[in-house]
Amino acid sequence: MKNFDLEKAHHLLSQEISQQQYGSHPPELYEPIRYIMNLGGKRMRPLLVLIGNYLFSDNYDNHIKAAVAVEVFHNFTLMHDDIMDNAPLRRGKPTVHEKWNPNVAILSGDVMLVQAYEMLLAVKAEKLPWVLKAFNRCAAEVCEGQQIDMNFEFRNDVSETEYLEMIRLKTAVLLGFSLALGGMLADASPENILLLKELGENIGVGFQLKDDLLDVFGDQEKVGKQVGGDIIANKKTFLLIKALENAKSDDLNQLKFWISQKEFDKEEKVKAVTAIYNKLNIKTLTESKMNEYFQQGLQSLEKMQTDDFRKAFLKGFIEKLMQRES
Amino acid sequence: MKNFDLEKAHHLLSQEISQQQYGSHPPELYEPIRYIMNLGGKRMRPLLVLIGNYLFSDNYDNHIKAAVAVEVFHNFTLMHDDIMDNAPLRRGKPTVHEKWNPNVAILSGDVMLVQAYEMLLAVKAEKLPWVLKAFNRCAAEVCEGQQIDMNFEFRNDVSETEYLEMIRLKTAVLLGFSLALGGMLADASPENILLLKELGENIGVGFQLKDDLLDVFGDQEKVGKQVGGDIIANKKTFLLIKALENAKSDDLNQLKFWISQKEFDKEEKVKAVTAIYNKLNIKTLTESKMNEYFQQGLQSLEKMQTDDFRKAFLKGFIEKLMQRES
Repeated sequence: MKNFDLEKAHHLLSQEISQQQYGSHPPELYEPIRYIMNLGGKRMRPLLVLIGNYLFSDNYDNHIKAAVAVEVFHNFTLMHDDIMDNAPLRRGKPTVHEKWNPNVAILSGDVMLVQAYEMLLAVKAEKLPWVLKAFNRCAAEVCEGQQIDMNFEFRNDVSETEYLEMIRLKTAVLLGFSLALGGMLADASPENILLLKELGENIGVGFQLKDDLLDVFGDQEKVGKQVGGDIIANKKTFLLIKALENAKSDDLNQLKFWISQKEFDKEEKVKAVTAIYNKLNIKTLTESKMNEYFQQGLQSLEKMQTDDFRKAFLKGFIEKLMQRES
Repeated sequence: MKNFDLEKAHHLLSQEISQQQYGSHPPELYEPIRYIMNLGGKRMRPLLVLIGNYLFSDNYDNHIKAAVAVEVFHNFTLMHDDIMDNAPLRRGKPTVHEKWNPNVAILSGDVMLVQAYEMLLAVKAEKLPWVLKAFNRCAAEVCEGQQIDMNFEFRNDVSETEYLEMIRLKTAVLLGFSLALGGMLADASPENILLLKELGENIGVGFQLKDDLLDVFGDQEKVGKQVGGDIIANKKTFLLIKALENAKSDDLNQLKFWISQKEFDKEEKVKAVTAIYNKLNIKTLTESKMNEYFQQGLQSLEKMQTDDFRKAFLKGFIEKLMQRES
């Protein structure tokens, strides 16, 4: 019986990330890759690859390269999303299109996607077609999610169902793929791989709902970014969608007033909208939806045919994700 | 002995391109893919895959899907390049970022790259790692070429060698990969595959030099776009680089004058710069360099171990590329 050593796994991933040869010439193409890959982050997706593998094998440290491929892909999506969202900062540092320029961010991102595929070639040849098929589907869905999210910007009638489907695509399918990839590399059965995928997607949606919550109710110091950013930007989050759905008369008018304002005091808007959220119990509503997804995920975990102590480790990992404050 | 049926090959490719399921939801993501893929074009790259295959096999029509993968990749690069170059038109029609918007063009392009990989899965599993390794390298080099080309915009001291290396990366390696892919799928020997790659790269450079020539000396009606577009935009082409290298005193001052002008009569600039090109024999110089590359390519063809009548077909195809007027 082998334990999953989270610290060691993190260390192996960081090592692989910093040692990776991303290319050199021209520097405008490759420097941004090193830059974004070394901004840090939780490395949650590659960890999920390794943990998915650990559920069915003791050799999870043989798959560091494939795990990092997923992190490279994730950072490619961040680099391109930041251009589209016009985001100035990523993890407190200038985004690539700000530090260099949008063209550099487009092209560096393109090369990163190619490099993600290159790193996936670390997978055994006989598994490659299967792994790539799953990866391609996931990658296309992530793009679909991003486009749907951008479309939401121009709508005020986004439904709960539409929103949940959007975050499933934009965020959750990659967590599902990460766990499933780990399972594939461990020769898990098709049933178990499907359960890993479902588990990942469910905790992925829960994870995004947690993010939505932290933006409004998080501790500014712990979250490390301005509280209420989503409110200021009128971002269609689960919170706003539920508030628009549940608010009546005065509250609804207030909410619509703040959404329509072009010029406003940021702090005042955050305070006013948060007050409406509180009145409508939005926090509880969101937490309960989030828990639904986490519970659903844990049910998939229950059904997996593997050792209980391995399952217990993944359960603990998920619970930490649920309880995180940043 | 089977002949290569160019018309049939073209038909099979068009059919595959129009029947391809690119996806549907959200439409902003998938409509631009159908749009750019159906703007037409010579389909030179997928034809080269099939011809490379034909050199060593009679079953070239088994590889239509892999051939179209290369065309999808090529169109992905066009979609992203057009954003970066701020190009309003592509084949006489609005570019994707103009018809939709830059974000749509970024994201649709991303999905196209994923789809190119997906279509490459048509390759037999045992060849996949090898094919992908070659494709990944080629894809990264195409991005390197594009970035180097963008860097040239801010320089007036680009050397002939630097220019030739840039177009090798940006344009030629993909033609090399196309022919080589055909060879790989036909079980050609490693030596023959290498010769296919060299052949493709050499005719690719020649092909781009031909493009540079047509921009200045082409027949406007046949080329289908404004003659002198490169001159107007101060594009560092082989012609301009050689002119800057060879011009003396008055001619050099004239050339620098036109390059430095922010406001000018377009026709006048094209006329003046073309006159300097003529005085310096730039057309002959460029044609001779172009022929050097074509001859080099044909030498690789000679060395290939296959039937002479197959080689003769490829030779004819290349000669048509050399003599094209658009």
